[in-house]
Amino acid sequence: MFDLIVVGAGPAGYIAAERAGHMGKKVLLVEREELGGVCTNHGCIPTKSLLNAAKHFVYGKESARFGVHFDNPRFNFTEAMAWKNETVQTLRKGIAFLMKQGKVEVVKGQASFPGGKKVEVGGVIYEGSNLLLATGSEAFVPPIPGADGANVVTNREILSLEKLPSKLAVIGGGVIGVEFASFFSSVGVEVHVIEMMDEICPMMDTEAAGLLRKKMSAVDFKLGAKVTEVTPRGVKYEKAGAEEFIEADLVLMSVGRRPITSGLEALGLDISRQGVVVDERMRTNLPGVYAAGDVTGKSLLAHSASRMAEVAVMNMFGSGSQAANAGEAIAVMRYNAVPWAVYTLPEVAGCGMTEAEAKEAGYRFKSASMPMRANGRFLAEHGKDAGFCKVISDEDTGLILGVHMIGAVCSEMIGTAAVFIEAELRVQDIIEIIFPHPSVSEIIKDVCWNII
Amino acid sequence: MFDLIVVGAGPAGYIAAERAGHMGKKVLLVEREELGGVCTNHGCIPTKSLLNAAKHFVYGKESARFGVHFDNPRFNFTEAMAWKNETVQTLRKGIAFLMKQGKVEVVKGQASFPGGKKVEVGGVIYEGSNLLLATGSEAFVPPIPGADGANVVTNREILSLEKLPSKLAVIGGGVIGVEFASFFSSVGVEVHVIEMMDEICPMMDTEAAGLLRKKMSAVDFKLGAKVTEVTPRGVKYEKAGAEEFIEADLVLMSVGRRPITSGLEALGLDISRQGVVVDERMRTNLPGVYAAGDVTGKSLLAHSASRMAEVAVMNMFGSGSQAANAGEAIAVMRYNAVPWAVYTLPEVAGCGMTEAEAKEAGYRFKSASMPMRANGRFLAEHGKDAGFCKVISDEDTGLILGVHMIGAVCSEMIGTAAVFIEAELRVQDIIEIIFPHPSVSEIIKDVCWNII
Repeated sequence: MFDLIVVGAGPAGYIAAERAGHMGKKVLLVEREELGGVCTNHGCIPTKSLLNAAKHFVYGKESARFGVHFDNPRFNFTEAMAWKNETVQTLRKGIAFLMKQGKVEVVKGQASFPGGKKVEVGGVIYEGSNLLLATGSEAFVPPIPGADGANVVTNREILSLEKLPSKLAVIGGGVIGVEFASFFSSVGVEVHVIEMMDEICPMMDTEAAGLLRKKMSAVDFKLGAKVTEVTPRGVKYEKAGAEEFIEADLVLMSVGRRPITSGLEALGLDISRQGVVVDERMRTNLPGVYAAGDVTGKSLLAHSASRMAEVAVMNMFGSGSQAANAGEAIAVMRYNAVPWAVYTLPEVAGCGMTEAEAKEAGYRFKSASMPMRANGRFLAEHGKDAGFCKVISDEDTGLILGVHMIGAVCSEMIGTAAVFIEAELRVQDIIEIIFPHPSVSEIIKDVCWNII
Repeated sequence: MFDLIVVGAGPAGYIAAERAGHMGKKVLLVEREELGGVCTNHGCIPTKSLLNAAKHFVYGKESARFGVHFDNPRFNFTEAMAWKNETVQTLRKGIAFLMKQGKVEVVKGQASFPGGKKVEVGGVIYEGSNLLLATGSEAFVPPIPGADGANVVTNREILSLEKLPSKLAVIGGGVIGVEFASFFSSVGVEVHVIEMMDEICPMMDTEAAGLLRKKMSAVDFKLGAKVTEVTPRGVKYEKAGAEEFIEADLVLMSVGRRPITSGLEALGLDISRQGVVVDERMRTNLPGVYAAGDVTGKSLLAHSASRMAEVAVMNMFGSGSQAANAGEAIAVMRYNAVPWAVYTLPEVAGCGMTEAEAKEAGYRFKSASMPMRANGRFLAEHGKDAGFCKVISDEDTGLILGVHMIGAVCSEMIGTAAVFIEAELRVQDIIEIIFPHPSVSEIIKDVCWNII
C-alpha cells in the first residue's frame, strides 16, 4: 500500500513524487518511457539545448560590430544533437537521483487502471491511498491527407533527426512551431511556417508576435493558410481562396497537443474534450484521485504542471505536513500568474493578461511600453535591435495585470512579473523596488514609472 | 527661481531632474562634464559594453561543444571601443532628450556654492527652493610612491586607451578591479590583481568570491598583498613579509572611491569622512538641501543613487504630487534590498545579507544552495560549468534575508531577489510562485524548497 501512486514522470509526476517523498510518504512512480516526460526528453530541454547552439552560431556571426571576429562559421548538427542528448541524459539521471533521495519506488511500464486507486503495471497490481494522474499530452496530428506520411514528424521525431533537412515546412505557428522554425532557420535551413490564424502564437501580445515574425526574417510565414494535403514533396494549402504549394523535404506537425487519457475512461473519471476535469485543488471527481499537468488541459506548460503537482500533494497530505505548513492552509492552483517564454531569437515572454485579454475581461486598465534600446544594458549588448517591454495595470488599483516583452534574455526576466502578480504588487510598489543597473530587468520598473 | 537645482547629472542627478520635471517642477541641472555622470561615461555602461564584447569573444571560442565552430578568433580593441563610445553617446543623447521632455534647464559648468540654496555657474547665480547635491565620487588614489606615474590609470583613463596593454597590474580587487581584470584577461592581456585583503570583493558571499577567482583562471590574483611602490616597470608589493615585484606596462588603480565634496564645506554642510551626511529622506543638515548618490557614501551603486534621488524628490514636493501619491506617504531610503551585480565572466550577483552578515546581525537563519548545473536551462546552455545560487532566510519568520549567486545571467535574475526582500516575501510564499521552465531564474524557487 502506497501513500501515493503517480502515473507519469514528467514535470507534474516527478515533482509530485519528489515533494511527497520529501514529506516521508511512500510513493510509487510509474512511467512507460523515460523519467522527465515530454519536457525533459522531447520538449523544453532538448529544444533549449539546440536553440542555445543556434543562438551562439548567430551571435558569432554578428559580433563583428563589437570588434569580435571569427572566420568560417560552421554548424555541426551531429555535435549539437550530441550535446542535446547529453543534457537530456544528465537531467534524467538527476531526476532518478531525486527519486532515490525521496525513497520513491520507480516502476517502468504502461499503467492500466483496474479501478479505484489501483494501478497495474506489467501484471502487478499496486494500490495507493492517493492516485495522481500525470500522463501528459501528445502531439495532435489532424486528419489531413498525407499527415501520416514518412516525411511528417512531430516534436518527438524531429529531435532525433540524423541530418538537417534542406527545406522544412512547419504546420502550426504556435510556440513549438516557431521555436523549431527559429532553430532550423538560424542554422541555414529554408523554413516555411503555415498557420491557419492571422497571427502566430495566440497567447502573445499581438505587437510582440508581429515583431517576432519580422525579426525571424529568414522564415517564410504563411498566415491565414489552411493546409489541405501533405504530399511526399511538400505541403498544399489554401490561402485567400487560392491553392498554393510549398516544397519541403520535412514537415513538422505542430498544430496542438491533446491529453493522454487512454485507459482512464474505465475509472469513471470525468473527462472533457480538454482533458481530465479537476477542481482548483487538482481533485478529480473520484475521491483520492488527482490529476496534474497537461492531462488536465488547463495550462500546457511544464512549470504549471509542477505547480499543479505541488498543489495536489499539499491537498493530499493535509495540514500536518511540512509542505502544507509552509504553504497556505489550503493550497489552490492559480493560473493568473503563470509566466511563459518562447525561446526564439529574439526571445518573447509574458505573464498575465495581454491588453486584448484585459479589455475582454472588462478591466479599466492602463498600459505603457518602452523599447528595449532605451535600456542601457540592452543598448550596450544588442545596440538598437528591436524589442520592447509592456506593462498592463488595473487603472483603479494599480495592480499588475500583465507584463509582455520581446528581446534578449526576457525568459529570465519574466519570473519577476510572476512575483509581481502573485504578490499582488501595484505599479506604485514596483517603482520603489531597486533593480540593478545596468540590467535589462530594470526596464520593467521604468515602464511602471511611465504608467504612474 | 527654480523649484529644484540639481548639481551633478549622474544617475542620482538626472533621475531627480527627470522625476521633478515630470511633476511639472521648474528644474535646473548643472553638470561640469557630460550628462550621465560616471555611470554612463566612465563606469557601468562603458565597462558593460566592453565586457559584453569579451563575453562574445570567449563564448565564440568555447561553442564547439555545442557544434558551433569558428576559425581564427580575433579581438579588435579599436572596434570594441568604438561600439562602447557609440553606446555611451546614444545614452547621453537619451538623457538629454529626457531632460528636454521634462523641460529641465541644463547648464554646463563647474558649480560653486555662494550659500543657502544658491548655485553659481560661469558667473551666473541661480537660486532654487530646493537644492540636490549629486556630485558623485571619484577614484581614490592612495599616496603610494609612483601612484602619480604616467603608467597609472583609474577607471576613467583606462576606458580611453588606444591599444591593449600587454601586461596589466590591477591594484585593488573590488568590483571595478575584477571587472577590468575579467575584460582584459578575456581578450588576451596578462593580468595581475593585487589585493590587500584575503579575498576579493568584500560584499560577496565568500564561497562565490573564491569560485569567481577560480573561474577567472587567466588572472593571477595576489591576495593579502600590500602595494609599496609603483615604478615605470611595474608594481612592488609586500606579501607575507616578503617584497615582490610584478612587471606591468599599465597599472589600474581601483582601491576605492571617495565623495566629491569640494566647495560644499563652505555651505555649513555636515560632511563626514564617508560623504555628505543625510537622513533616510536624503535631507542634509541644511533646510531644503538634499544629497543623493555616491556623494553620500551610503551605497556606491548607480541604482541606489537613482532611488535616493527619487526619495529626495518625493520628500521635496510633498504629498500633493503625482509621484508622492504613488509612493508611500513619506518616502524613505532603504538599503536592505539593494541588489548588486558584478559583470565578470561568470557573473556574480547578490541582494541582502550574506551568511556572514546575517550571523553578525544576530539572526537565527537558514540557508541552502544549489549548484547551477542542477538547473535544466543552465545545463542546456553551460553544461556542468560551476556556479550556484544561495538563499538565506530568517528561521523564525521565513523572510528572505539574502540571495547570492554566481554563474550565467545572474545580473538579470537578482532583481527578483530585490522584489522578494522589498515585498517581504517568505520562503513559504516563494515556493508558491510559478517561474518559467526552463529558466535559470527558477533555481531561486528550487533553493527555497530546500530551505522549507
